[in-house]
Amino acid sequence: MKVVVLGAGLVGGPVAADLAGDFDVVAADASTEALNKLKNRTDIKTIQADLSNPETVAQLLKGADLAVNAVPGFMGYQTLESIIRSRIHAVDIAFMPEDVLQLDALAKKYGCVVISDMGVAPGMSNMLAGYAESLFDRYDQLEIFVGGLPKIRTWPWEYKAVFSPADVLEEYTRPARLVRNGKVVVLPALTEPELIDFEEVGTLECFNSDGLRSLVHTMQVPDMVEKTMRYPGHSELMRVLGHAGFFNHEPLEVEGKMITPLAVTSKILFSQWKLQDGEEDITVMKITAKGMKNGVKKAISWSLYDQYDRVGCVHSMARTTGYAATSALRMVAKGLFTEPGVHVPEFVGRHPKCVQFMLDEQRKKGVVYSQSITTA
Amino acid sequence: MKVVVLGAGLVGGPVAADLAGDFDVVAADASTEALNKLKNRTDIKTIQADLSNPETVAQLLKGADLAVNAVPGFMGYQTLESIIRSRIHAVDIAFMPEDVLQLDALAKKYGCVVISDMGVAPGMSNMLAGYAESLFDRYDQLEIFVGGLPKIRTWPWEYKAVFSPADVLEEYTRPARLVRNGKVVVLPALTEPELIDFEEVGTLECFNSDGLRSLVHTMQVPDMVEKTMRYPGHSELMRVLGHAGFFNHEPLEVEGKMITPLAVTSKILFSQWKLQDGEEDITVMKITAKGMKNGVKKAISWSLYDQYDRVGCVHSMARTTGYAATSALRMVAKGLFTEPGVHVPEFVGRHPKCVQFMLDEQRKKGVVYSQSITTA
Repeated sequence: MKVVVLGAGLVGGPVAADLAGDFDVVAADASTEALNKLKNRTDIKTIQADLSNPETVAQLLKGADLAVNAVPGFMGYQTLESIIRSRIHAVDIAFMPEDVLQLDALAKKYGCVVISDMGVAPGMSNMLAGYAESLFDRYDQLEIFVGGLPKIRTWPWEYKAVFSPADVLEEYTRPARLVRNGKVVVLPALTEPELIDFEEVGTLECFNSDGLRSLVHTMQVPDMVEKTMRYPGHSELMRVLGHAGFFNHEPLEVEGKMITPLAVTSKILFSQWKLQDGEEDITVMKITAKGMKNGVKKAISWSLYDQYDRVGCVHSMARTTGYAATSALRMVAKGLFTEPGVHVPEFVGRHPKCVQFMLDEQRKKGVVYSQSITTA
Repeated sequence: MKVVVLGAGLVGGPVAADLAGDFDVVAADASTEALNKLKNRTDIKTIQADLSNPETVAQLLKGADLAVNAVPGFMGYQTLESIIRSRIHAVDIAFMPEDVLQLDALAKKYGCVVISDMGVAPGMSNMLAGYAESLFDRYDQLEIFVGGLPKIRTWPWEYKAVFSPADVLEEYTRPARLVRNGKVVVLPALTEPELIDFEEVGTLECFNSDGLRSLVHTMQVPDMVEKTMRYPGHSELMRVLGHAGFFNHEPLEVEGKMITPLAVTSKILFSQWKLQDGEEDITVMKITAKGMKNGVKKAISWSLYDQYDRVGCVHSMARTTGYAATSALRMVAKGLFTEPGVHVPEFVGRHPKCVQFMLDEQRKKGVVYSQSITTA
């Protein structure tokens, strides 16, 4: 089977590399620098192409069976639309700002199976949250704690951005939607910090962030929260900068020029936050779902601790995001999930066999979600 | 006797008010707003005048016996020169950037007694450091801890600038000169934080700042340090901002414009750091001098804790700075200190009667330096 990986960057590159053993893989990207990282792989065909042009995308997809949409978010929607119009099943990890479910009708019309937002969080977090539905008579609570962190902690930020630093600052400023007592509640980002201990990394601090996304609407759970995790202290510095006005979008007059504080702050921080090639990162996640089954309280949780791959030189963020996507692609290729339409991962989670397949596939690559069930 | 107070701002105003009982007082300032604060005082003559013009200053000084130089630092030197050329004794609290001792010869020539930098620190700190010389056979160590703080601590800065916020940031960036083992050592500002407990305010944090000024050259003490005090945590935030580059003077390109990070940071912080009218402040200082006397270790220390004057609505910073200056002026007026020339306060400190007079005068206004002597 032929797979086209659209976007061969930080995540798309390792995705193509992982798929190359089982599929005929074409990796396309506008950046020759990105493609050059795959040039030693004789089992991957690389094509330099402007993926912002839908016709180019359609051309690339000719003869393909499957696609992975790994382009930057801003061009994610139109690229997925091209994929669907080419009648090709796909896994989407573009994390577009638009509502991907607007393409559901089109996907159904063309008989396409699309699994969207299929990374680690969003992605596996949603899938496991959806899976938990089948375990409860009454689903009471969902907590997702997740963080991508540098392995080495360096003062003062103790942080490196495993994705775009601009998106990180956006996460520190966008109000967080959560669900409390059945109602959607909006709180400022970075609020309600709490400490949580992990066996592998010690104490981390988590705080509200706007990560529930589709779960706010797709899950009927009265209490849901997603929190971002950082090494303790980082979020306090971000609260200070935010409170003081360093993240403000409103221009200030400085030295006779109108300037946006956030732009200055971004310029100052991004060089310090950039994860360098070879710099090791980790991914930590804990998902806890609580409910009732046969009149008894039941809780299920999954813990993930993943590290930079020193052999393949693949960042943990790329591993956890990319291998979730490749597992989903294999699942679709094997005919385990066949329903046409655009599916967020919580819908996939309703199929226990799919969940088991996804967990098993990732385990093969060392991305292990440890499950624990307690009843009381 | 007639006293002209040049500059009737935050400190000059209370200086004029304090002197009005004992002297014929003229207060001059360019700002009508500053002068309006004295308009209810029938015992003070206010004159709106451009003090940056030396001829205007000379005109104002005609017939005066004494002057207080309380103009902004940048015009302090030329104003003091005008005072000296008018053959008038003076106390200087302009805290000019130039070396005031360059005017010593001129003051001697015209028979003027000038006491310069006669605030709280620099000022009383220098005077008491100089006084301690007379107590020791061998003067080993001098420590000055000083801070002007808001009475109410508000997250995140827990700080209000009792003088210009720009000067505060300057203090956080200018390398600190201290003396160790008889040698001048330069360390970055904000370094070597340590905690110190005060009976009246609890725990404060002090860190290196460049406050020794003339003491570096005038005192033969092998170990001397001046540290600034803030509520704990403030200095860490300043170290973070400094380390990250928010205090940098080198322009950055942001949104296509060249902009200085320090200018942006100043713009953001100054509105938050400005001490408002009626907002209560405190001044905390601890001076410790150690040495040997008759083969025995001896230590002398002075502690100051001063608060905002709710009755007169005078900030503690203005009280501690201004009343040090008015005490010195009274000392000169009474003929207790008669030596022509420009004198930094440590020189005044060599005269025990002067020191006693200065301490007694300030005590009358509630500015109390509590002395403690230990021998071992």
